[in-house]
Parts: sequence; C-alpha cells; structure tokens
Amino acid sequence: MSDGAVPVVATQAGKFIDFHFDFISPYGYFASRQIESLAARHGRTVRWHPFHMRAVMKDMLGMTQAMADVPLKGAYVRKDVHRMARWLELPYAPAPTASFSSVTASRMLCLIQEADAFAGARFAHAVFHSHHALGRPPNSWTDAQALAAQSGVDAASLVEDEHGEHARDLFRQATADAVAKGVWGTPTFIVDGEMFWGCDRIVQLDEWLRHGGW
Amino acid sequence: MSDGAVPVVATQAGKFIDFHFDFISPYGYFASRQIESLAARHGRTVRWHPFHMRAVMKDMLGMTQAMADVPLKGAYVRKDVHRMARWLELPYAPAPTASFSSVTASRMLCLIQEADAFAGARFAHAVFHSHHALGRPPNSWTDAQALAAQSGVDAASLVEDEHGEHARDLFRQATADAVAKGVWGTPTFIVDGEMFWGCDRIVQLDEWLRHGGW
Repeated sequence: MSDGAVPVVATQAGKFIDFHFDFISPYGYFASRQIESLAARHGRTVRWHPFHMRAVMKDMLGMTQAMADVPLKGAYVRKDVHRMARWLELPYAPAPTASFSSVTASRMLCLIQEADAFAGARFAHAVFHSHHALGRPPNSWTDAQALAAQSGVDAASLVEDEHGEHARDLFRQATADAVAKGVWGTPTFIVDGEMFWGCDRIVQLDEWLRHGGW
Repeated sequence: MSDGAVPVVATQAGKFIDFHFDFISPYGYFASRQIESLAARHGRTVRWHPFHMRAVMKDMLGMTQAMADVPLKGAYVRKDVHRMARWLELPYAPAPTASFSSVTASRMLCLIQEADAFAGARFAHAVFHSHHALGRPPNSWTDAQALAAQSGVDAASLVEDEHGEHARDLFRQATADAVAKGVWGTPTFIVDGEMFWGCDRIVQLDEWLRHGGW
C-alpha cells in the first residue's frame, strides 16, 4: 500500500510504526496485540499493512513449502505458538492454518483503510481475533463484511460486485510496496527506516524507540 | 554428540542447558556470550553441542541457499547482525561468512569434549571469538590447534593423523543426534525437553527457567 493511500491519523506528524503482517501468521496476531500499546508509549501511530506472505515466500524467498510442512521446523512452530500465546496471556484457539485464506480479509482491509485508517485498525483486530482466538477464519467476502460491521464500518457499502476488483488491486499493490521496502516476513515493523522482523523483536523495537537507535 | 560422550560437570545433577550451534552463525556467537551467565543464574551447566547447520538446511529443511543469498532476507540479516552486536555491546568484526568453514573447528571441539567438557567450553568461546570478533576464521587443523593451546588444552596431543578420522565421526554423530532431538536452527537451547530457537529467545528461556515453565 502506498503511503498516499492511507489516511493518516498521526499522534505526532510523521511519527509512525509501520506494521506489516499477513492475517494468517500467528506471530502477526501476537504482535497485533502488543503493537498499539508500544506505539502509544512512544507517541506514535501504527499503520497497518497487510501483505500476501505466501506470494512473497514463493516469489522472493524461493520457499514453496508452508512453514508447518517443513521437517523439524514445522513441529517446533506448532508447539511454539501455543507456548508464546500462554506467555503473552493471549487467547489462542485458531482454526487449522490450511482452512484460512487470508486474501479476502486483506483485500477488504485495504478497502476500509482507503476511507478510514482507524476503522481499518479495528477491522484488522477483528480478523486476527476471529481466526486465531475464536477459530473462525473469515474466508468469504460475507464473513469479512460481518466483521467489518462489528468493527463499526458501514459494511452495507462494501459490495463485492462494486469494490471487489479495486480491493484486489489495492492488496496486490500493498504486497508489491512491502517487498519494495524490503519486507519478507510476518510480522515486520519499520520505524524511521529501521526494520525489525519477528514478534520476539518487540522488546528490541521498544528499546530502539526509547533510545532513538544505537 | 551422545550425552554419554560428554564428561558432565554439573552444578546440580541433571540441571543442564543444552546449547546447539554452528560456529558460523553470528546469532550462535551472540548466544554464546550470554548463555553461561544465564545458566549460572539458574544453577545450571551449559552443554555445548556443535552441529553442521549447512547439512541440516540442505538435508532436512530443503534449503540450498545460504541465508545471506536469500533475496530480501539476506539484506536484512546482514544489517541486523551489526545492530544486534551493538545492542549487546559485543565485539563484532567477522571475516566474510564464505571464508569460514566451521567443520574442522567443530570436529576438534568434539574431540576436546571427550576428555574435558570445561576445556571444550573454553575452546568453543575461542573459536567464536576468533571468527566473529577478530575476523580470523580457524579453518585448518593447525588454526584450531592454536586456539586449543590458547584455551589451556594439551594441543600437542591433538594430532590430525591420529585423531582426525575419529573427530570427523564424532561431529557427524553430533549432527545426527541434534536432528534426532528436533534441532533445525542455530542457536537452539533445550532445557528439560523444552526447545527454544534463536538468540532473541534468551529472555523467554530465562523466564521459563525462573517459573519452571508456564
């Protein structure tokens, strides 16, 4: 997503945390539950950037296997996500990863953000919560519309026949823009041009903002 | 390395941190500089387990590219390692990664450990320091012997013609044993059957030991 497409609601002009994620990522979900309080501590505003992780893995990283299918690493991650959720005291009861296609919800997020960045953030939380905490992956446009309505968005205006193609273009551009910035994993945070990958780097990101780098 | 091959010097019987690494890994080096003080805080002893990361990447993870050559991710890591070193206030001026073959030093570590686990730990620190802090990769048997001598090991007894083949077998077995335990990345820590991957998980490992899990 180009910066121009996001209506910016700044706490201080130009003081952002750019948060790049794919809704399907459990570590993205864990980060989503911590990033706003971190941003608030530093007088910053979170900009939410969905991107298509599977496309980046395939096209950029040369990875064709889902992480869960990689020998050894898959088994580690399947256990680690539950341990991480307990550590952070977050609700975590996801539907099977393979049952969630995050593309439709990501497209709708791009569409909502065009009109209202705050509404986009509320919707993003609702999508993460629905899949990762409630085990209800919002796969269809109708599913995503229902979450939009719960997030205070005028969901009746989000008609797929009218806006679906534009939403698809927005999300495709968002993924291209993320790659152009050097994003390759989820979650990724960018502050003042400095990039941090992984929800286990939130402590380091916090320190970076406190000290203005090192 | 089978546990039986390591002369165990326990602070409390059975209270270990199993530390798995490849000397070539900068994150392994960063971990090596933190793990012993962490272990001491919890009354544990570090067991040092070298393994052949490149073999595991190729044979188990299906990765044929060195991390530094992966688009986007490589660029991130090349920057991140310096930022991490500054954060931890560790000396970091490595030789180019491609100039270091960690296999010989790993084989010698296995050999030294057979006789003396403490000497092995001192030698492991010397190897990490030589490549990552001084930019002097100990590639040859003679290089590794010199570091062994500096570590208080009877280096004259480490004759390649006599012990080289046995050392090779030990290291091959160490890699197989690591994989059998589920290790797939460097660094990896195992405590009481619980596995943590990455030097950015040392905080979480510390909490795990403090609380006895969660």
